[in-house]
Amino acid sequence: MQHSPALAALPSADGCWQPVALAPWLCAPDVPVGAGEPACIAVEHGRIAWVGPRAALPTAFAHLPRQRGEGRLATPGLVDCHTHLVYGGERSHEFALRLAGASYEEIARAGGGILATVSATRAASEDELLAQALPRLQQLLAEGVCAIEIKSGYGLDLAHERRQLRVARQLGAHCGVTVRTSFLGAHALPPEYAGRSQAYIDRVCNEMLPALAAEGLVDAVDAYCERIAFSLAETEQVFLAARHLGLPVKLHAEQLSNMEGAALAARHGALSCDHIKHLFTQGIAAMRAAGTVAVLLPGAFHTLRDTQRPPIAALRAAGVPMAVATDHNPGTSPCLSLLLMANMACTLFGLTVPEALAGITRHAARALGLQHTHGLLAAGRPADFVLWPVQHAAELPYWLGHKPSCGIVRQGRIAA
Amino acid sequence: MQHSPALAALPSADGCWQPVALAPWLCAPDVPVGAGEPACIAVEHGRIAWVGPRAALPTAFAHLPRQRGEGRLATPGLVDCHTHLVYGGERSHEFALRLAGASYEEIARAGGGILATVSATRAASEDELLAQALPRLQQLLAEGVCAIEIKSGYGLDLAHERRQLRVARQLGAHCGVTVRTSFLGAHALPPEYAGRSQAYIDRVCNEMLPALAAEGLVDAVDAYCERIAFSLAETEQVFLAARHLGLPVKLHAEQLSNMEGAALAARHGALSCDHIKHLFTQGIAAMRAAGTVAVLLPGAFHTLRDTQRPPIAALRAAGVPMAVATDHNPGTSPCLSLLLMANMACTLFGLTVPEALAGITRHAARALGLQHTHGLLAAGRPADFVLWPVQHAAELPYWLGHKPSCGIVRQGRIAA
Ligand SMILES: [Zn+2]
Ligand SMILES: [Zn+2]
Repeated sequence: MQHSPALAALPSADGCWQPVALAPWLCAPDVPVGAGEPACIAVEHGRIAWVGPRAALPTAFAHLPRQRGEGRLATPGLVDCHTHLVYGGERSHEFALRLAGASYEEIARAGGGILATVSATRAASEDELLAQALPRLQQLLAEGVCAIEIKSGYGLDLAHERRQLRVARQLGAHCGVTVRTSFLGAHALPPEYAGRSQAYIDRVCNEMLPALAAEGLVDAVDAYCERIAFSLAETEQVFLAARHLGLPVKLHAEQLSNMEGAALAARHGALSCDHIKHLFTQGIAAMRAAGTVAVLLPGAFHTLRDTQRPPIAALRAAGVPMAVATDHNPGTSPCLSLLLMANMACTLFGLTVPEALAGITRHAARALGLQHTHGLLAAGRPADFVLWPVQHAAELPYWLGHKPSCGIVRQGRIAA
Repeated sequence: MQHSPALAALPSADGCWQPVALAPWLCAPDVPVGAGEPACIAVEHGRIAWVGPRAALPTAFAHLPRQRGEGRLATPGLVDCHTHLVYGGERSHEFALRLAGASYEEIARAGGGILATVSATRAASEDELLAQALPRLQQLLAEGVCAIEIKSGYGLDLAHERRQLRVARQLGAHCGVTVRTSFLGAHALPPEYAGRSQAYIDRVCNEMLPALAAEGLVDAVDAYCERIAFSLAETEQVFLAARHLGLPVKLHAEQLSNMEGAALAARHGALSCDHIKHLFTQGIAAMRAAGTVAVLLPGAFHTLRDTQRPPIAALRAAGVPMAVATDHNPGTSPCLSLLLMANMACTLFGLTVPEALAGITRHAARALGLQHTHGLLAAGRPADFVLWPVQHAAELPYWLGHKPSCGIVRQGRIAA
């Protein structure tokens, strides 16, 4: 872990954080604590050494200094498992256009949409991309995010995809937050490959991905399988290239139509399938069998004035874990609040409060392959947790547009 | 104006705020400034002395100190023209219940809903009500709100309605923000009057309203005209009592059904009709004739998973001014972001960007009778304005869940 000078200056979180209440369903199964019961989180050497009812704190931790936490509710650090956070420019003008009636696909076909951001991203230097992404990341971090996925996909050639991924790594080091990168070269067809989709996918698989993976810039490989993006066969080619390099895959699947991408992704052991509004029985069964997480993105649903909801009841019945993410991107979800996404997952998609909170913590961690280190309060894990100025966990998705002033312990340091 | 000690310590905003860009449609008609053009706001003695293109700044203001503002966009201070901000408790438990399928009316009939908050509000002391409302108000103020309406309506007897209104006044003095109070005794039937609606309305009109008005606690009179609340005849009785005291009226109208409350309110010269989702031609014509503002409340629309939208196109065609507010209340809109309401007014109701921004500034001011002092950048008005870290005004409703770190001048003082 690289630490920036700013991060190194943050105080250590070592000590006994008490008294705090916990949300039991966000604790490891062996933590015998009830809702609202006074609890304690002992932190040593930047890790959670013990968590449980305050009255049961082992004497071995009695020497630790007492830390803040009075009357606050503790959750694991939040995990935003789907973002396109690094890009140039913004698209508020298109927001105004959409209000005038243009559809997402119309804007895309008119040369706007993703390609407008591709142009702005290619035109920006690495420093400019960092400077533009940093305040966006800081908004998410101030709300308790401790791990975040950041995709490429606005460079669409080797040099510019590299730049996006390098900036993602720099953001993690600079802010002291766990960043997982996803290479999304197969996000859109770049203009210089118009009409030559197969040639571009060959470039993605044979040149871009191997080079970026060799530089250690790729934690997972993503693709956009949709009639306005890449076909099922092209998507499979990307997945095969990823697996050849030993990299896990994930997919933007069934956002606008049922492409049967989820079933394909599940056959390749995908970490997650994301959007999945047009997902049906076969895809759900494949995801269940593969342990693939369903990532719900209510920000795009809201922004696009969508009416097709993901099949929540079927996913719930099948036992497919559901995560909730911002999908932060300048076109369809310029979203800077993961708590708002939890609210929208409840209000728009009908998730229950425990489902929504698991969706922005442990299931989101699983969607990034971080289920053994993030998203759950448990002894032995890195000290990433948040102390909220609320009495009940249900308040986190309940308040609308709330950015509470919370206490944040991130990577074993007191970040707020 | 009372100033709390904390407020008095804020620095004066006197000086030349330059260079800033302005949103022209939020300036007085005689301000000849184009979108994005470098501009200047001169502040003297806590008032806007001059506003316009930077190059045209009169030499008379050259002696003023230069103030911050570099590269930022200025708007008038935001106005939240419909809130129920002062109450005891919160209702996140009901939020969870609604996710389990209970309707708003079912919860109300089961003794939950408004009456749960009435109990918690009556049980709280004045100091407790202030302490609970203050962090909610501070969330709104941090986003640039410079004037806010606060209703009573959770006390439902003289002593407790008085307590709510007194706390509203204290909040204004403590935070240095313009507070307009609305007496909403006719919000719900208190349990001790079950089955005796007329007797309660008599008490509202003959005892509560005259006493509270005599104490200077009432700036306007509101009522809830709905089949689960008060009838059209009861509403008119309240309006007549208000007009007898020379107080302006407003109405929660046509939220769940067409009660023809808007037409009644307009006949009484109402400042605003709020919710108005089931408003039809006759009510729109009456509002236009009376100059009544239509207040849109997308937070309740969102929270209740509503599908009935207010008649935006007809209101627009008729030239009825549209405002947008949080409707902050613990049951149907626990909303702490007016910018998010602007986003939802665009995305859910189809307002254009200029309409949404006028809705949280000048039309909102008009809904409070503050159109001559608030909601517009113009010489001679109190210095209430916000400097946003954005390039384009469209970014204010575009970003979703954004709480940008903005500069705020409120009541002639630098508040952030
Ligand atoms: Zn995405
Ligand atoms: Zn209301």
